[in-house]
Amino acid sequence: MRLISSLFLFFLVVSATAGSSGRTVANKILKKPAARHPCKRLVFYFHDIIYNGQNAKNATAAIVGEPSGGNKTILAGQNHFGNLVVFDDPITLDNNLHSTPVGRAQGFYLYDKKDIFTAWLGFSFVFNSTQHKGSINFAGADPLMNKTRDISVIGGTGDFFMARGIATLLTDAFEGEVYFRLRVDIKLYECW
Amino acid sequence: MRLISSLFLFFLVVSATAGSSGRTVANKILKKPAARHPCKRLVFYFHDIIYNGQNAKNATAAIVGEPSGGNKTILAGQNHFGNLVVFDDPITLDNNLHSTPVGRAQGFYLYDKKDIFTAWLGFSFVFNSTQHKGSINFAGADPLMNKTRDISVIGGTGDFFMARGIATLLTDAFEGEVYFRLRVDIKLYECW
Amino acid sequence: MRLISSLFLFFLVVSATAGSSGRTVANKILKKPAARHPCKRLVFYFHDIIYNGQNAKNATAAIVGEPSGGNKTILAGQNHFGNLVVFDDPITLDNNLHSTPVGRAQGFYLYDKKDIFTAWLGFSFVFNSTQHKGSINFAGADPLMNKTRDISVIGGTGDFFMARGIATLLTDAFEGEVYFRLRVDIKLYECW
Repeated sequence: MRLISSLFLFFLVVSATAGSSGRTVANKILKKPAARHPCKRLVFYFHDIIYNGQNAKNATAAIVGEPSGGNKTILAGQNHFGNLVVFDDPITLDNNLHSTPVGRAQGFYLYDKKDIFTAWLGFSFVFNSTQHKGSINFAGADPLMNKTRDISVIGGTGDFFMARGIATLLTDAFEGEVYFRLRVDIKLYECW
Repeated sequence: MRLISSLFLFFLVVSATAGSSGRTVANKILKKPAARHPCKRLVFYFHDIIYNGQNAKNATAAIVGEPSGGNKTILAGQNHFGNLVVFDDPITLDNNLHSTPVGRAQGFYLYDKKDIFTAWLGFSFVFNSTQHKGSINFAGADPLMNKTRDISVIGGTGDFFMARGIATLLTDAFEGEVYFRLRVDIKLYECW
Repeated sequence: MRLISSLFLFFLVVSATAGSSGRTVANKILKKPAARHPCKRLVFYFHDIIYNGQNAKNATAAIVGEPSGGNKTILAGQNHFGNLVVFDDPITLDNNLHSTPVGRAQGFYLYDKKDIFTAWLGFSFVFNSTQHKGSINFAGADPLMNKTRDISVIGGTGDFFMARGIATLLTDAFEGEVYFRLRVDIKLYECW
């Protein structure tokens, strides 16, 4: 009799956990902070050199959109509000621009605030090495005056098939309006 | 004997539900309309004032890309096809532009159809108040002549860690080509 | 006794599969390649005709951002680095531009590499037919010199509510710098 009632209880528990209400239940479980352990973690640096009219060879990024009165070789006033920049930046494992790249960060960012530096990013990390093959796709707001900022990992391909997670950005260095380096701490919470 | 066969049946059922095939099974469960209850719901308004050459102080958005023949202070003909707009818009809890903002909507939209008004959006809601800290990231098509339009919540950070869902947009007001207000009904179906 | 120990074992198995640790466990299951079966698969073609100054009526896409020295009717040198293109392209079921469209591909792409053709895409498939209603949202890097490229399905609405997956792109045809056709093989791994 004890066995049967245990079984009955068990049935109820399992039903509530994996039964009719599906993901809704999973969400309730996942709300526990204890569940927020990354299933994969990766740290990279990437390096952005903006074209200023004189550095065509070394530049990895270019202004392609600007507000009224702006131009393509000087970032706009008012905290660059309205500048859209396309980039193909080398990714390195350490903070040295001259280290051998392990992949490319490709996409765009745009400055979107008049009274402070703030950006919005849409880009991918593209890997094709013995270590990583595939891509990680990112999107999100980058309030870059904050020491660290979180953006979303919205998908991935290859080794990062269907990945989701959070990437924490840190401005590791910047030199005037031509060069900056971001440290990207990628924490995936969905790994397939 | 009846107990054992019940158990065996039970085992089969649970295996099929939560066992070896993982998320595929979860998906089958989730296909049931009954499972489509948001785990979180939020309604906000945001307000977009486009720079027209004379409203620099109040403008919250600017044209930064335009088709051949276009300019930065007048939206293009042919339903603005090809215009790219960067914005930093106040978010309010009600439909009053002058209410205290609870956050900022930041990112871009572009008009992408010649024969009707239609847009594509990539942006974030950025919160830093006692009520909400973190961001919600959005992307999707906005066929804005429809009364309501659904876009995707593709991720989130902070209070909205790893969120996914749907945001239903409604054009609550517009005044010529300078001001519009969107009502955003956010329904999250994945909450962590 | 054998029954009780079986039950105990069963309890452990179920606990590990669907129990307290939620999605983390699901991820472990999902890492098995066997779980990578699409829950939905769709193949479409879309057709992009870039405005070149003389094809206003037929063009489905326009250059709206360009690097320093570029213009809006001729794609830029250096593999079009810095060109941003907005599009509203017909989607067809076969590879014939003149087939009846089943929807529209709407959004943008940008060329983001100086030494080879490579793009980054943010767009939606928008359907409003008897067969499909709703949208599928995409983002990702498109190294278009590769025969096939994977991008992410980052969300969906309507019939594609909350979809996630991978879309494999193949350049099915191109004619100079005015027309190209992509074959898109959509594999959804999360269906609701």
